Amino acid sequence: MKTAVDATALGRELYDRVRALYPICRSITGSGVRETLARLAGEIDIRCSDIPSGTRVFDWTIPNEWNIRDAYVKNSRGERVIDFRQSNLHVMSYSVPVHARMSLDELRPYLFSIPEQPDAIPYKTSYYSPRWGFCLSDRLLQSLPDAEYEVRIDSSLEPGHLTYGECVLPGREAAEVLISTHICHPSLCNDNLSGISVAVSLAKLLGRMSHRFTYRFLFVPGTIGAIAWLACNEARAHTIAHGLVLAGMGDRGSINYKRSRQGRAEIDRAVAHVFAHAGQQSGIEDFSPAGYDERQYCSPGFNMPVGVLSRTPWGRYPEYHTSADNLDFVCPAALADSLATCLDVIEVLEDNTTLISQNQKCEPQLGARGLYASLGGHRRGGQATDAALLWVLNLSDGMHSLLEIAERSGLAFTVIHRAAATLIDAGLLLDVNAVPQPARWRRTGTTK
Amino acid sequence: MKTAVDATALGRELYDRVRALYPICRSITGSGVRETLARLAGEIDIRCSDIPSGTRVFDWTIPNEWNIRDAYVKNSRGERVIDFRQSNLHVMSYSVPVHARMSLDELRPYLFSIPEQPDAIPYKTSYYSPRWGFCLSDRLLQSLPDAEYEVRIDSSLEPGHLTYGECVLPGREAAEVLISTHICHPSLCNDNLSGISVAVSLAKLLGRMSHRFTYRFLFVPGTIGAIAWLACNEARAHTIAHGLVLAGMGDRGSINYKRSRQGRAEIDRAVAHVFAHAGQQSGIEDFSPAGYDERQYCSPGFNMPVGVLSRTPWGRYPEYHTSADNLDFVCPAALADSLATCLDVIEVLEDNTTLISQNQKCEPQLGARGLYASLGGHRRGGQATDAALLWVLNLSDGMHSLLEIAERSGLAFTVIHRAAATLIDAGLLLDVNAVPQPARWRRTGTTK
Amino acid sequence: MKTAVDATALGRELYDRVRALYPICRSITGSGVRETLARLAGEIDIRCSDIPSGTRVFDWTIPNEWNIRDAYVKNSRGERVIDFRQSNLHVMSYSVPVHARMSLDELRPYLFSIPEQPDAIPYKTSYYSPRWGFCLSDRLLQSLPDAEYEVRIDSSLEPGHLTYGECVLPGREAAEVLISTHICHPSLCNDNLSGISVAVSLAKLLGRMSHRFTYRFLFVPGTIGAIAWLACNEARAHTIAHGLVLAGMGDRGSINYKRSRQGRAEIDRAVAHVFAHAGQQSGIEDFSPAGYDERQYCSPGFNMPVGVLSRTPWGRYPEYHTSADNLDFVCPAALADSLATCLDVIEVLEDNTTLISQNQKCEPQLGARGLYASLGGHRRGGQATDAALLWVLNLSDGMHSLLEIAERSGLAFTVIHRAAATLIDAGLLLDVNAVPQPARWRRTGTTK
Repeated sequence: MKTAVDATALGRELYDRVRALYPICRSITGSGVRETLARLAGEIDIRCSDIPSGTRVFDWTIPNEWNIRDAYVKNSRGERVIDFRQSNLHVMSYSVPVHARMSLDELRPYLFSIPEQPDAIPYKTSYYSPRWGFCLSDRLLQSLPDAEYEVRIDSSLEPGHLTYGECVLPGREAAEVLISTHICHPSLCNDNLSGISVAVSLAKLLGRMSHRFTYRFLFVPGTIGAIAWLACNEARAHTIAHGLVLAGMGDRGSINYKRSRQGRAEIDRAVAHVFAHAGQQSGIEDFSPAGYDERQYCSPGFNMPVGVLSRTPWGRYPEYHTSADNLDFVCPAALADSLATCLDVIEVLEDNTTLISQNQKCEPQLGARGLYASLGGHRRGGQATDAALLWVLNLSDGMHSLLEIAERSGLAFTVIHRAAATLIDAGLLLDVNAVPQPARWRRTGTTK
Repeated sequence: MKTAVDATALGRELYDRVRALYPICRSITGSGVRETLARLAGEIDIRCSDIPSGTRVFDWTIPNEWNIRDAYVKNSRGERVIDFRQSNLHVMSYSVPVHARMSLDELRPYLFSIPEQPDAIPYKTSYYSPRWGFCLSDRLLQSLPDAEYEVRIDSSLEPGHLTYGECVLPGREAAEVLISTHICHPSLCNDNLSGISVAVSLAKLLGRMSHRFTYRFLFVPGTIGAIAWLACNEARAHTIAHGLVLAGMGDRGSINYKRSRQGRAEIDRAVAHVFAHAGQQSGIEDFSPAGYDERQYCSPGFNMPVGVLSRTPWGRYPEYHTSADNLDFVCPAALADSLATCLDVIEVLEDNTTLISQNQKCEPQLGARGLYASLGGHRRGGQATDAALLWVLNLSDGMHSLLEIAERSGLAFTVIHRAAATLIDAGLLLDVNAVPQPARWRRTGTTK
Repeated sequence: MKTAVDATALGRELYDRVRALYPICRSITGSGVRETLARLAGEIDIRCSDIPSGTRVFDWTIPNEWNIRDAYVKNSRGERVIDFRQSNLHVMSYSVPVHARMSLDELRPYLFSIPEQPDAIPYKTSYYSPRWGFCLSDRLLQSLPDAEYEVRIDSSLEPGHLTYGECVLPGREAAEVLISTHICHPSLCNDNLSGISVAVSLAKLLGRMSHRFTYRFLFVPGTIGAIAWLACNEARAHTIAHGLVLAGMGDRGSINYKRSRQGRAEIDRAVAHVFAHAGQQSGIEDFSPAGYDERQYCSPGFNMPVGVLSRTPWGRYPEYHTSADNLDFVCPAALADSLATCLDVIEVLEDNTTLISQNQKCEPQLGARGLYASLGGHRRGGQATDAALLWVLNLSDGMHSLLEIAERSGLAFTVIHRAAATLIDAGLLLDVNAVPQPARWRRTGTTK
């Protein structure tokens, strides 16, 4: 499936987008998120929603909006020893404003480093309690002389809005596929500029195709953004037939899937099928309630069929939530492979249907329809096509979808789907759900 | 179970029948099939049905009847270089008549060989498109000089009948066990004179016994014959409680079972149980829609509990569908073992029933009935009989058949059945389905 | 869980009780059983029931009461070569009275030994057929000279009673936990003074605690006693929510569980969970109808959720049902470990409940309630507590018990239960079954 045709170009597009968005200082609210969404709006049709601070969203309240202009720690010579302009990770996200002079000992409780990774700046946040802090490499921390420092965080934390973006691609059906990705992290590449970038390219590709499902791309601040969207779209949740959270799509590890809370939803089985036939390493894990925004989509009151596609899962690589999750940590090939996997999964979802054989009792005569080698008896070589035809006919009793036929036969979904198309053309199968379709779903792009 | 008492004699009977039927040129129609059925009628009570050419059977049409008298390719000296009289495999089955002179190059498209097996004549058919052809060893093909040849196939393809045979052995119950075997192959021993021969001996043995089920043996041309029978017996299909397709019963490979489409039908579990306790190598595979006439019996509209018993499955031995599937390829011991396996499976089907313990609350006092060692406390050696008694009593709650008790206990069905018989004799078990029986099913023959 | 605090003291208490009861000659009826129950009544509140001989209990009849005063085999010099006063195992239980002189050859059919274990006296019974016999070591048997002997068994077998004891500890709920142990064995330690002793200490410990379930301890003669209790308490059977048969609790083998006939009852899953998290070797086996009194509790008409807790299962150690099952064969540490395991299982049963998250749609804001590290982003070390909170919230949809949440999360029940308690305190979970409780179940003792 994953033809190499445009993998290089696609990888470049995906990587360049990560690079362009990298410098922006994002958080769960503020101008960084809006600037990020504005950039994406240059590529895909994004509608932004602004939820005012103080709005109740289920058990939560939209916090004040946080913006930051500058921050530093200066030594006695007035030199910036810690400088927000060098890395926005230096400031704990949602730090309240501060301007003071203090000794190193007084400053220490506000300084965060990782002794085990002496060169990495940790990524820290304090969204819901009013604190401030600086993050820095342990090497820098250890080098700071015991002197007096000027500490300044020029931030504001005031009533404003939480902003999220949506891109909707209407399909032939109202049923939706949800693609959700979090946009609240500052200069961190894998987590989650990689997910943002893959989602944008995926939306662009799907925008050029005819498709059955309506695709809804969510670009939301983590946790609070997903909760806000669900609170504003409670009735819509049940129209979502399948969903994926995209995160960590650019590291060099193999592809990984975390099942939805349902565990055996069609999305779970579609991804498992694609992985099993992909011919490359992959991993599948059961649902757990820690993670990304699937925590909200899979909360019991929603229990949506939403899984998580990532490469190395969060927290299992040392670069996670540190300055080492940078432009070197992600690579074009991994980004392109993640996107290709999304497309493979979507192809299964799009093409999966339940057909009814017109010959429930005994096989139809395939030979009379030119669907069978006319010479019987001894043969050489495989008969994979014949086998797929027979599997589809035998299991198209109205109780097996094409994906289930693929699973039971051990054949690839694409082989089963092609056989089904042949049998539909021969008038041997009927799609009970089918309404007259202007054009079947076909990729019109050149990506694969 | 498989006592060696008559294995030698039985193997001889089975093999001799294969040898007697070997020379006949069979196809899906024609005098060869009728001659074969006539021979079998000398041993068992076979009723033949003739379906006229042109009859619609589900999606299919009974083809014209094919008969062949002679066929050859003669060289310029008038010598038969390919001669139907030497092997009926030399002519593609259902070849239309031809009489012509042509060069080797003109003849070549009509000649079939197997380069990888230079001494084997392939078996070829063209039932449903009007063609002709000769099959020959590749060694012979390579030796043919570039000359002119006289080509003659003295066949006829005219309205007639498709013929199949049925042998019905009425049992105490109307529910049937179907034993189906295909009779359309010419001089090929394992596929499927072996299946025919095992079916005939099985019918003879069962004919001498009292049995619970009605046994229906079908001797049908492959595919079209099974379809014709199903079309003529649509209402009967649901009286078939269990079924086996017999094919490839004589090669030296180990015994093999392919599950019915249902997968967990009683026949599937009975065979699995027999295999598990047989103490010899065996294999079980899931249903797939390629194969023998189970394709029709297991089509979704019938979905009958019919599996396939064979030794090495079709297509997995190089002799398959070639002249190498000859009298040397099958052996008496394998044929006898296949028959013994059928009998073991049938014994489970016959004896399997659901009983009701008369003591649902607490164990009955076995000791008082002489069913228990009267001395309690320390014992030496096994208590397999006791264990079987306890298992049967504990699970005879109306929800577990004896086969299910055997499965759960890990004990052999025969051990469980013997325990059940003991408990019935002691008045501790009741067979809710039992009507007064003249005599319980017992083998009266000496075969095992 | 198994803190070592009182393990030594507890082991001593358990072992001392075994030692005190060891000399008594018990059988399924008679003064030995009553004396044993009288001793236990000094420690726990036991109510005894006497069922008259001749009473029908389901398929059985209460036998005559057996009592024995003395028994011996004397040689020609009047010396007791086999002496009941040395070991009550020397007399086959339920031996009818005998007084005779006979030669060794005449005596032989009444003598039982174990040639493979020349020093062990076997334990033999003949409850339901009138016999007599002596058991002795094979070494002693071989040394007996061929002479005349005086044989005397001063026993009586007369109408009387079968006696069993019950200790009921009322809980907040009427639903019961059954703890059953057999009391019919004479001087045998592991089988089953060990089970008796563990049951008594367990009853003492539970008596000092507030508990949810009502605990019913049964001290019954094997088989006939359990049957008698069931016959007298047929209506009560369905109030038993969980049950354990305790037997063989003192040998040095690892702990073992045999599942109830139901196989997936809560008791089965609770024990499996405790074993999986215990960090020591343990075994679990499926139900089988041979064994102890679970045979009756799990007869199909009752099918109670009763499993068996033992160390090395019965019959799998050479000391089983011989004089080698003595005070050396059991040890305080094993007895204490068995009791601790019971307590761990009971803790799961007591604390298992189904809770309802007050926030079915999206997570509640844990941070706002001080239940979450307020600093987000990069963290070091585990977050087991957080994970447990999230698991409990996510699966508390009314369809998952805490035990099921523990099973699915892979976390220990105690961790899940603690998280649930935290969430209840925070008002985030509601126990739908909860009625106002005077005090939650807490161990008030110091045993663990």
